[in-house]
Amino acid sequence: MNKKKNILILGAGLSASSLLRYLLENAEKENWHLSIVDQNLSALERRINNHPHASALSFDALQPNERQPAIAKADLVISMLPAAYHVAVAKDCILLGKNLITPSYVSKEMMELHEEALKKGVLIMNELGVDPGIDHMSAMRVLDEIRVKNGRIHIFESFTGGLVAPESDDNPWNYKFTWNPRNVVLAGQGGAAQFIQEGKYKFIPYHKLFRRTEIIDIEGYGSFEGYANRDSLSYREVYGLEDIPTIYRGTLRRKGFSRAWDVFVQLGATDDTYRMRDSANMTPRDFINSFLPYNEHDSVELKLRHYLKIDLDDQLWDKLVWLGIFDDTFKIGLPNATPAQILQHILEKKWRLEPHDKDMIVMYHKFVYELDQKYHEVVSEMVCIGEDQTYTAMSNTVGLPIAIFAKMMLKNQITEKGVQRPIQKEVYTPILNELEHFGITFKEKEINPPRLYNPEAIWR
Amino acid sequence: MNKKKNILILGAGLSASSLLRYLLENAEKENWHLSIVDQNLSALERRINNHPHASALSFDALQPNERQPAIAKADLVISMLPAAYHVAVAKDCILLGKNLITPSYVSKEMMELHEEALKKGVLIMNELGVDPGIDHMSAMRVLDEIRVKNGRIHIFESFTGGLVAPESDDNPWNYKFTWNPRNVVLAGQGGAAQFIQEGKYKFIPYHKLFRRTEIIDIEGYGSFEGYANRDSLSYREVYGLEDIPTIYRGTLRRKGFSRAWDVFVQLGATDDTYRMRDSANMTPRDFINSFLPYNEHDSVELKLRHYLKIDLDDQLWDKLVWLGIFDDTFKIGLPNATPAQILQHILEKKWRLEPHDKDMIVMYHKFVYELDQKYHEVVSEMVCIGEDQTYTAMSNTVGLPIAIFAKMMLKNQITEKGVQRPIQKEVYTPILNELEHFGITFKEKEINPPRLYNPEAIWR
Repeated sequence: MNKKKNILILGAGLSASSLLRYLLENAEKENWHLSIVDQNLSALERRINNHPHASALSFDALQPNERQPAIAKADLVISMLPAAYHVAVAKDCILLGKNLITPSYVSKEMMELHEEALKKGVLIMNELGVDPGIDHMSAMRVLDEIRVKNGRIHIFESFTGGLVAPESDDNPWNYKFTWNPRNVVLAGQGGAAQFIQEGKYKFIPYHKLFRRTEIIDIEGYGSFEGYANRDSLSYREVYGLEDIPTIYRGTLRRKGFSRAWDVFVQLGATDDTYRMRDSANMTPRDFINSFLPYNEHDSVELKLRHYLKIDLDDQLWDKLVWLGIFDDTFKIGLPNATPAQILQHILEKKWRLEPHDKDMIVMYHKFVYELDQKYHEVVSEMVCIGEDQTYTAMSNTVGLPIAIFAKMMLKNQITEKGVQRPIQKEVYTPILNELEHFGITFKEKEINPPRLYNPEAIWR
Repeated sequence: MNKKKNILILGAGLSASSLLRYLLENAEKENWHLSIVDQNLSALERRINNHPHASALSFDALQPNERQPAIAKADLVISMLPAAYHVAVAKDCILLGKNLITPSYVSKEMMELHEEALKKGVLIMNELGVDPGIDHMSAMRVLDEIRVKNGRIHIFESFTGGLVAPESDDNPWNYKFTWNPRNVVLAGQGGAAQFIQEGKYKFIPYHKLFRRTEIIDIEGYGSFEGYANRDSLSYREVYGLEDIPTIYRGTLRRKGFSRAWDVFVQLGATDDTYRMRDSANMTPRDFINSFLPYNEHDSVELKLRHYLKIDLDDQLWDKLVWLGIFDDTFKIGLPNATPAQILQHILEKKWRLEPHDKDMIVMYHKFVYELDQKYHEVVSEMVCIGEDQTYTAMSNTVGLPIAIFAKMMLKNQITEKGVQRPIQKEVYTPILNELEHFGITFKEKEINPPRLYNPEAIWR
C-alpha cells in the first residue's frame, strides 16, 4: 500500500467549500490526509465534522514561521489565501521542495520564481479556478483542436460572468452579488481596456466601458451582454496566439445591466480614490445629489435625468428607483467613506442573495479560423447553476478544478515543473472530462456562416 | 552705507525673465548683488550681459552639497527650481538660517517644516506667483475689507486662466499654449473636483469636468468659461472662511473650449497611465481611431460623430478638423508613448505661440456677503497682457510678486516667520500696490442686485 499523502490547505473560506467536499469525499479511497488551516477555526471544525482523514490546524497561515513547518510536512500545498500572499507561500514551497496550487493570476513576482522552481523540480500551478482557470482550459482545448488540423485562428473572443440563476432572477437588474461586492463596484477601474480587433489596437477608457458592450446569446439562457476586460492583449502570449488579428476577453451581465450601471460611472459614484466629507450623515438621495449641479428648486430626479439625458420612458430608470437611490428616509451611516463604499452599501441591501437563491456561472468562447481557404466558426458555451448557498456555482467552478488537479498530482500523473497555468493538454483534458460529472460541461457548435468583422480582409 | 545684500536665485528658466529684469534694474539702487544659477549657463550669461551687480554661477542647484555653500553666503534665497525640489532647498535654508521665496504650492512636506522654521527665525514664503500668488493676495484684500466692516461672506468664487491675448487670438479654439503644455493636457486629472455650494458638498469626476462649466464675463474682454479646480475646499482654511456656504475655484478658458476639449476626455485621449502599442507608426487619424469601435467601412469621422453624438452643424467639429486630428499623411513618430503624450504632440503643432504672439492672464473673483441684513456682491477682475515672448503675462505675474517681496524683505519690512503664503495685509498691500505700476490692476465693482444661488436661504 502507498504511503498516506498529506495535503495542506491554507485558507478555507466560503469559496473553498466545494474543494473541501471533493477532497474529504475522496480522502479514504485515495489515501489522503487533509491538514486545513483557517482563521475561523470553529467554522472549520464544524465543516470537517471529525472526519477521520482531516485535521483542522490553528496556526496563522500568513506568518512564514508558523506555516513553514506545516509546508515541510505536506506532500502538496493548496493556497486559498488572499492572492497577495501567494508569492510568499510559493517561495516557502520552492525552498522546501513542495508543489503548490493556487486559483489566482500569475503576478509578475510569481513569474520571476519560474527558474528557481524549475531548478528545484517544483510545480507552482496557478490560475486553476474558473476565471482564470476553466476559461483557459476550455479555450485551449478548442484552440489545440484547430491547430492540430492546421487551422489558422483569426478571432478569439471569450466572456465569463458570475450571475444569479434564472430561477432566482427576480429584480430589474437581473443581477445579485454572488461574489465579492467590492470587486463588482470597482470592475473596470485602473486603466483603459485594451484589445485588438482585425489588427487594430483598441482602447476603451473606464467612463466608456459600459457603453461599448457586445450582445451574446447563450442557447437556452437568452441574451447577455459583455464589456471588455482591462487586459486582453497579454493572452496572445499565454495562448500562443501572438499574431491573431482579433482577441477580446470580457465580462458577462444580463442585457441592460451595463447601460444602467453606467449611470453610477458617469456620476462618479464608483470612485474609490477619495473620502466624502460628511458621508456618515448622508441619505442615499444626498449621495446622488452630491454628484449633481446645485439648484435650490429642482428635484434630484429631474437633475439626474437632465444631466445624463435619461428619457422619461427609459427602462433604466426603473432599475435606479428599485435600488432606492432616491430614498431620503435613512442615513447611510458610513463615516469617512469613499463613493464606491457608499454605493456598495446601498447595493448590498438590494443585490443580496436570499437563502434559497442560487448563483450561475456563464462562459462563452467564440473562435473563427481559416482552414483550406475557408473560414469556420466554433462557439463553446458553459452554464453552471449553483446547488445552494454553500456549494455555489462559483465554489464548484473554482474548487473542483483544483481538487481534480490535486488528485492528478498525487497520482504522479503530472510531469510539469516551474510556474504554470493549466494550458497543457495533459492537464486540461482530464480536468475538463471529470468536470462533466459535476455538470460543468461545454457545448461546442459550428456556426454557419461564420461571423467575421471584415469578410473582405486578406489574412495579414 | 548699508552692507551689500546677496540674493541667490536657484533656477532661471524662461519663467524667471521678469523676476530677473526687476532685480537687475533695482540692484544698483538697492545695493544688491545677484548670484544666479541655471543649467543653461550660456543663456544665463547672455541674459546677465556683464551686469556689474550680478554673477552667473555654474554649480548644480539640485545637488545639496553644491548649493549649500552658495546658500550660506546669501542674504535671501529665491527658488525657481521645479516644485519637487523646494522642500530640500527649504531644509538647507532653515539649517543655514536663510529666508526663502518660492512660487509653488505649499506641500504637506513643506508645511511640516513650519515649526522648525519658526524656531530658527526663518521665513519660507511660498505661493508667491500668479496662481497661486496674486489670486491669494487680491482675494484676501477684498475678504479683509468685508471682514473689517463686519460683513459675513456667503459666496467666494475665483477663476484664473492663462490664455492667448485677444490680438493674437486667431484660431477656432481661442487658445494657444502659453505655459507647460503637459499640464494643460493633464488638467483636471488625479481625482474628482470638490467644492461646496450653498452648504452642499459637490463632486465632479474628471470625465464630467469639462461639461460642468460656468460662464464668466470680463468687462472689455467678452465671455469666458470656468471649470472647477480639483481642490476648492482646502481654501476655506487658508482664507479663514471655515463656515462659508459656497466656495469654488476654477480655471478659465474662452467660451466653447471645454465642450470641444471634452471630446478628447471622452475618447480617453488624455490618458497618461499606459503606453500605446505601435504608437511610433500611428498617424493622427490612427490615434483617434484607436479609441473608436472597429468597423471595416465607416469613416473615423462618422464613427466619432456617432460615438459622441456630435451633430453635423456643431461648431466644435471645426475645432477638431482645424487641429488636424483626422490627418492620415504623416506618422506621429513617438515610440512607446501615452495617449496624453501623443495628443500633446498633435496640439503643439497647432497651439504654438508665434514669435509676435502675446499671452494673457485673466483673473476673476466674485464675493457675496451679508451686511446689515442685506446681501452685497463685489467682483474683482484683472487682465494682464504680455509684453512679448520674453516678458510674457505669465512671467510678469509670476516674477514680479516675488521680486517685490524680495525687496520688502531685504528692507526688513517683513516680520513673518515660518512656512507662509502671502495672505497677510502687510504682505499683500504693498505688493498689489506696486504691481499696479506694471499694469497688473484689479478692478473692483459692486453688482446690483447680488447674484445668489438661493435667495430664499437663511444664513445657516
